[in-house]
Amino acid sequence: MSAIAEGDDVLLYLDKKRTYMVRVEAEKQFHTHKGFVELGDLIGRPFGSPVVSSLGVEFYALRPLVRDRILKTDRRTQVLYPKDIGYLLLQLDVGSGSRVVEAGTGSGALTMALANAVRPDGMVYTYEINPKFQRVAAGNVERAGLAEYVELKEGDVTGEIDEEEVDAVVLDMATPWAVVPLAYEALAGGGVFASFSPTIEQVIKTVSAIREHPFIDVETVELILRNITVAENKTRPQTLMIGHSGYLTMARKVLESLAGHAST
Amino acid sequence: MSAIAEGDDVLLYLDKKRTYMVRVEAEKQFHTHKGFVELGDLIGRPFGSPVVSSLGVEFYALRPLVRDRILKTDRRTQVLYPKDIGYLLLQLDVGSGSRVVEAGTGSGALTMALANAVRPDGMVYTYEINPKFQRVAAGNVERAGLAEYVELKEGDVTGEIDEEEVDAVVLDMATPWAVVPLAYEALAGGGVFASFSPTIEQVIKTVSAIREHPFIDVETVELILRNITVAENKTRPQTLMIGHSGYLTMARKVLESLAGHAST
Amino acid sequence: MSAIAEGDDVLLYLDKKRTYMVRVEAEKQFHTHKGFVELGDLIGRPFGSPVVSSLGVEFYALRPLVRDRILKTDRRTQVLYPKDIGYLLLQLDVGSGSRVVEAGTGSGALTMALANAVRPDGMVYTYEINPKFQRVAAGNVERAGLAEYVELKEGDVTGEIDEEEVDAVVLDMATPWAVVPLAYEALAGGGVFASFSPTIEQVIKTVSAIREHPFIDVETVELILRNITVAENKTRPQTLMIGHSGYLTMARKVLESLAGHAST
Amino acid sequence: MSAIAEGDDVLLYLDKKRTYMVRVEAEKQFHTHKGFVELGDLIGRPFGSPVVSSLGVEFYALRPLVRDRILKTDRRTQVLYPKDIGYLLLQLDVGSGSRVVEAGTGSGALTMALANAVRPDGMVYTYEINPKFQRVAAGNVERAGLAEYVELKEGDVTGEIDEEEVDAVVLDMATPWAVVPLAYEALAGGGVFASFSPTIEQVIKTVSAIREHPFIDVETVELILRNITVAENKTRPQTLMIGHSGYLTMARKVLESLAGHAST
Repeated sequence: MSAIAEGDDVLLYLDKKRTYMVRVEAEKQFHTHKGFVELGDLIGRPFGSPVVSSLGVEFYALRPLVRDRILKTDRRTQVLYPKDIGYLLLQLDVGSGSRVVEAGTGSGALTMALANAVRPDGMVYTYEINPKFQRVAAGNVERAGLAEYVELKEGDVTGEIDEEEVDAVVLDMATPWAVVPLAYEALAGGGVFASFSPTIEQVIKTVSAIREHPFIDVETVELILRNITVAENKTRPQTLMIGHSGYLTMARKVLESLAGHAST
Repeated sequence: MSAIAEGDDVLLYLDKKRTYMVRVEAEKQFHTHKGFVELGDLIGRPFGSPVVSSLGVEFYALRPLVRDRILKTDRRTQVLYPKDIGYLLLQLDVGSGSRVVEAGTGSGALTMALANAVRPDGMVYTYEINPKFQRVAAGNVERAGLAEYVELKEGDVTGEIDEEEVDAVVLDMATPWAVVPLAYEALAGGGVFASFSPTIEQVIKTVSAIREHPFIDVETVELILRNITVAENKTRPQTLMIGHSGYLTMARKVLESLAGHAST
Repeated sequence: MSAIAEGDDVLLYLDKKRTYMVRVEAEKQFHTHKGFVELGDLIGRPFGSPVVSSLGVEFYALRPLVRDRILKTDRRTQVLYPKDIGYLLLQLDVGSGSRVVEAGTGSGALTMALANAVRPDGMVYTYEINPKFQRVAAGNVERAGLAEYVELKEGDVTGEIDEEEVDAVVLDMATPWAVVPLAYEALAGGGVFASFSPTIEQVIKTVSAIREHPFIDVETVELILRNITVAENKTRPQTLMIGHSGYLTMARKVLESLAGHAST
Repeated sequence: MSAIAEGDDVLLYLDKKRTYMVRVEAEKQFHTHKGFVELGDLIGRPFGSPVVSSLGVEFYALRPLVRDRILKTDRRTQVLYPKDIGYLLLQLDVGSGSRVVEAGTGSGALTMALANAVRPDGMVYTYEINPKFQRVAAGNVERAGLAEYVELKEGDVTGEIDEEEVDAVVLDMATPWAVVPLAYEALAGGGVFASFSPTIEQVIKTVSAIREHPFIDVETVELILRNITVAENKTRPQTLMIGHSGYLTMARKVLESLAGHAST
């Protein structure tokens, strides 16, 4: 049974909407509007334990999952939702040992999910042009304990990708089409290209760029997630939902044939 | 650069609808309605290479991804789609070292995705009551090179789960609600429960069973995937789509408080 | 060309989110945070004309459509959206001369759409148990100029439906299943039953009640409406959307056969 | 109670998938793979009556609804679904007395719905460039008893619209953007423009053309219809669905202001 230790991150859970990521320290208190929690009291207790605040309100002390860390990243730089990230994990075929190029890093939400998937034997090379975002991402990745699987690279991915023979390239940036030629070069044969774009014009340009290179199995999808309220005589999809985050475009690199480019 | 070796599985790709999983052997031919391919010719060539059939039709020789293997499993025993499996990978927080219980195994589609995610240091314990399905799953897992990360268990998961302190329990079976008490026992504190069910009545019963145990962060979602045709002046969601595979219900185990069960 | 007259309702349109339903009077001013509009100035001008407020902001004076009136009804008593109402207009086969029973009236949104469809030769008989809602509905119907096509009936539709041989019965109430036997009696042969319900439990009970009577062509649908932003390089479904209003269940009455009930 | 008469159209209903539109004649038999039905036997019986075939199979004799006629039109020329048509009926604000321009007529599915909505005092002017389609539409409209509310016009609507001060213009054609200027001219102030297009490129061009004229309340939506199977312990959205028919774009004409074009 895994016990909470000093220095661990803990997700204090009050309810779905109110969760707090805190670092456990012996003498520290964490203050909420429901009273404060003595973080030192958590040391030695198993993850999943209840803890009562000074006002008698019960929280639960959870080991943070990667998805918790994703939801805690700055949403201003991040439009990928868990539904999109999960699908990318499968479509990119990331697993231990995979070498993946990502751009841009943003606040590191997708970076963490990829790093968790490629550990312990793989590596995520992630490009970000904005140093401020990169510092945020570095902090998030470090705190998640994933720093050794991530190489944060400051630079413009439309100009150069240093890596070769990578298993996957994944883009979440404004002009993905401009990276398609370099992505093709960086990928190993059979490697997977993926791009996330909010607008259909981005998709059209990106697919057009893909079709100018020997890629096959080109496809664009959109994932829609509905939250369902399940309660006796009240079961129904929720009234308000996120209607759109973006489109995912995927393709697989093949090696050039004598006859010319691949076409589907 | 990774080259094709004798004994490797290769995905021969003609187009999106016509792909063939073959094992490379020196003297073997693979016959299609577009002519035959000399599999021995592939040996030593890089993955992603084109290969021309006896009728002059070009195929590509791809290293099979986990998602290719999933799509090649018997769909009669399998209603989980890649959209659902990807989301589960993230929500279950599986990564190297995770210990996961699955039931039922079916033809092993989800099993392979989980095994790929937990390697090299984790394990998937997967229960199946039907020996015929289990044999199919064993073959699929073996062929995917994932056998050492999977323990195939023949038995009725509604009667017993042998494992303790596991990180996740995931159910794809007719009566998931009957497994909720045992799943609670098997999970470590903070561990994730997930269940996939096609019908809303299954969901209602499962959520009701979940609420009788100290689980928090209970949620049910449905993922809808739209394929988008992207081509100049023809860009649009595709006419025919899969409208529904099933609902995903997730929850996280917490340890019992003195005050009684958790409620949201 | 149709001109605005004193006493007419006019929809003053500033933008999609800011529209105001006003009655034109000679000496009246309509005040907004963008200045006031002299309503008398509108008299004699064609519908669709621009009008400038005292602060120099331009509004447009539109003839209110039925859909404008629907959107102006009190949303607390009304969860039917235009997408649902439009579908009902077609599925109920309402047209001039149709005789339709509705329950409950609520604030009269669906009532107005039905009345507009059945005029000049049909009639909507609409039941409401709550006198406060009924007064609101009466005002809305009157103001829309549709009062002569609507009979507002205060009463409990689960106890009695006075009408016979009607073309359609449409329910938007908490317990539609309780009305199914009376709806069957009230309908003419081939007449259409429809019910709107937010929860799936309501749908299950209603369909179960329908199957105990000679109804055919029973079907339940859900309509999802996505708003699309269309602008150069910004085209995409909108981020926030209404994820669910309710399910629509339809059936058609047939006359009893000697062999027993109809079944599909 | 309305009785079936010689010459009436009747919808013979076996089940949801097998319905037959027949004209009742005294000595005629209608043959199906479930035996033949003596159509003369129906005369004098009420609509909704069961009728037994020569093989003992029960059918129901229904009065055809407009939606039945829509579903019986040739789907090759028709991609508008009932979900789209219903929404248009509400959004176009058609009712008795409305004058509506439609193009192209196709096989007349939308034409019939519009004609039913505008009767007895309105008119649908519908343009079709293909004489073959027009003949089909003429037959459908005539058989539906709606001919007196429809003026079928053979011609190219991109070249000329004869009507003025109409309440609505609705387009279901390949190049709707080319008709926007003429549609603006034909509409009365406050009149509604609507266009149905399968592809997003059509939508982008159409919205761009709309923005060059004084239209307000411009919006594009997509309607998605899910069929729900409702049966004890089997309740769920259906597996296969129509994923897309087209986008609907709507706008309202306003009269030109001194300051220039309207913008939202």
